[in-house]
Amino acid sequence: MNPLTKPTPDALPRKASGKAPLPDHLRRLVGQVVDAIDTPSLVIDLDAMERNLTRMADFAKKHEIRWRPHAKMHKSPALAKLQIAAGAIGVCVQKTSEAEAMVAGGVQNVYISNEVIAQSKLARVAALAKVLSAQGGQLAIAVDSAEGVSRLAAAMAGSSASIDVFVEIDVGQRRCGVIPGAAAVALAKKINSHSCMRFAGLQAYHGKAQHLRSAQERRAAIAVAVEDVQYTRRLLEEAGIPVELVTGAGTGTLVLEAASGVYSELQAGSFLFMDADYAQNDRDPAAPKFEHALFIKTQVISVQADHAVCDAGHKSHAIDSGMPTVHAPDAEHALEYFNGGDEHGVLRVAPCGGRLPALGQFLWLIPGHCDPTVNLHDFMIGVRGGLARGQVERIIRVEARGALT
Amino acid sequence: MNPLTKPTPDALPRKASGKAPLPDHLRRLVGQVVDAIDTPSLVIDLDAMERNLTRMADFAKKHEIRWRPHAKMHKSPALAKLQIAAGAIGVCVQKTSEAEAMVAGGVQNVYISNEVIAQSKLARVAALAKVLSAQGGQLAIAVDSAEGVSRLAAAMAGSSASIDVFVEIDVGQRRCGVIPGAAAVALAKKINSHSCMRFAGLQAYHGKAQHLRSAQERRAAIAVAVEDVQYTRRLLEEAGIPVELVTGAGTGTLVLEAASGVYSELQAGSFLFMDADYAQNDRDPAAPKFEHALFIKTQVISVQADHAVCDAGHKSHAIDSGMPTVHAPDAEHALEYFNGGDEHGVLRVAPCGGRLPALGQFLWLIPGHCDPTVNLHDFMIGVRGGLARGQVERIIRVEARGALT
Repeated sequence: MNPLTKPTPDALPRKASGKAPLPDHLRRLVGQVVDAIDTPSLVIDLDAMERNLTRMADFAKKHEIRWRPHAKMHKSPALAKLQIAAGAIGVCVQKTSEAEAMVAGGVQNVYISNEVIAQSKLARVAALAKVLSAQGGQLAIAVDSAEGVSRLAAAMAGSSASIDVFVEIDVGQRRCGVIPGAAAVALAKKINSHSCMRFAGLQAYHGKAQHLRSAQERRAAIAVAVEDVQYTRRLLEEAGIPVELVTGAGTGTLVLEAASGVYSELQAGSFLFMDADYAQNDRDPAAPKFEHALFIKTQVISVQADHAVCDAGHKSHAIDSGMPTVHAPDAEHALEYFNGGDEHGVLRVAPCGGRLPALGQFLWLIPGHCDPTVNLHDFMIGVRGGLARGQVERIIRVEARGALT
Repeated sequence: MNPLTKPTPDALPRKASGKAPLPDHLRRLVGQVVDAIDTPSLVIDLDAMERNLTRMADFAKKHEIRWRPHAKMHKSPALAKLQIAAGAIGVCVQKTSEAEAMVAGGVQNVYISNEVIAQSKLARVAALAKVLSAQGGQLAIAVDSAEGVSRLAAAMAGSSASIDVFVEIDVGQRRCGVIPGAAAVALAKKINSHSCMRFAGLQAYHGKAQHLRSAQERRAAIAVAVEDVQYTRRLLEEAGIPVELVTGAGTGTLVLEAASGVYSELQAGSFLFMDADYAQNDRDPAAPKFEHALFIKTQVISVQADHAVCDAGHKSHAIDSGMPTVHAPDAEHALEYFNGGDEHGVLRVAPCGGRLPALGQFLWLIPGHCDPTVNLHDFMIGVRGGLARGQVERIIRVEARGALT
């Protein structure tokens, strides 16, 4: 074979080969005023984001609790490192390819808080554990089946690295996770029977509780989760297996897990950006006050008798948790957003009054759900000095966008 | 400045600078069996897709009607060219950046069937019109306001190229488009007052009608649209403005527009892949029989007492038109998919019976809505020979993925 036509060996980590340089039009945007941002675009209010970050760091410090925020939300090693600089111990991710992106971006403590079953993926997990181990970092993963432990052990066999393994228990989410109690003990024993892995504690995340609207409902749900954890921990300790860490909590309930006395790590991620869905929760008075920091800039492209149409539809923002709300600087401009399909939003005057926007006017939408919204975009545009008169400070790549495997 | 460090001038079209080479793991997948495809992945059954294409081409030929399918669905110039080879006149798109991707990929007839208002985008539209004009191709665009016509004229001023302009009328979608009748005549006159643009006809797409479940409801909706078109065309002709083309129709109603005698171009795009939402329509007996050709391959990562969990959530497939259905080879495996969040799907045994899948088992999901599902993926994996025992024939890049502006 001609050496010049020989295929390049696949030496690079998977994520590295999928990325292109920053497009020129985005590179040129840095330093320009907000008005220069094309629509629809994903924009971060950096001042608001940094205030959220400080509030979370202060909260964790005050409650003497570790935090390892979920990077499945921002999918950006740059933002992960900002969180770590503020006090986070590392990041959580849901996918092997997200872990690869974080490690490639310089994050040294990564927890795949999800089950990985495919042999091909577990080989990549083992390779990542080795990379992190050599750097003095640490990889962790969740399991909820004996088969999962066996497959992970087979992938790790012969490796000089070790991996932290959390047993996931189902504390009310009804998704992954074994029933709290004896099943978790059996898995912990199986994990500790392999020298390449270490039982690191319990994964006890209650996703559904995050979005219960009243503080009372959330308290009731997390009280049950806490009981589940306590029961399982007691059985483990009786079996001579210490539980070093109990990890869980999201932006909706973090106050409750922090005060529980059994959770020792918070995974909340959405607090950094907040979204319209979390804003509908009655805030627990003890919770940090997080602000909206993530927006879709959009433009009005059609004005009719009783409605206007903007250029952002659900290819610009996820609608799994409801429609975006329209960020209004004053009541005169109160607008409601209705589903206009993939590429359009239909805007009507809100019941409290207001008037339709003009053709060409820019508007800011607060997405219903930040995680899948970020995943629609290759870049986030970071603005300093506010949405009205600020300027573009930096472009943040969504490195793990579309990292599904 | 050192010429070696001088930034490269922005000579490439915007889309080109945002793309990276095909990742090695995907390049190596070509020729391998279906089992080798990682999960979750977007997979095209190429045989089914080609049958759909032939059926559409035959239908258009039989009804002697033009078709310009919507490329907002597949976002791929490669698939656009396949459609053109089968008889399509060109493609429709919704965004300027989608048009750029199509033109860069070699498509010469592109219709932006949407309003464009931003001056910066209109400058790109004018540049594209010039590129296509030089190649003997044609660019078209829709308008629904006098201001829109003026802005387009300003962008086209001094250009040697011309652009086809459709006036969008609202035939029931209640989104963009002027009220049928006099407003359309005024816009057509304004268009024809500019030498750089040509009134090309009426954009009369009824999006909502596509998803009405009964054939009778769809007939009633399109009957109203046809009346709206007839009325507007009569007024235009009375004003001495011939209506060369009436364009519209989607996969749900194309039979009706084709038989209407007033529509002369079909924009249907989803027929190529079909999706779970369109499958819920009662099929019009006169409509071509389209098959599901787009799937998410997913793996079971957790099995609990009464449910299983797969690794595809709504970051893998859009849920704006409902959950995906589980493609079952036989009744024994009938499963229902429930929302498990961004990265998970919860699977339960369907009421008709069946049993839970095994840990590690692969399943195939039929997405609720093909357009925004494709937009979540950078690549589509084309399989020949069926999902059970086929092999990967080609990797198709979603060139205009995330092309929002």
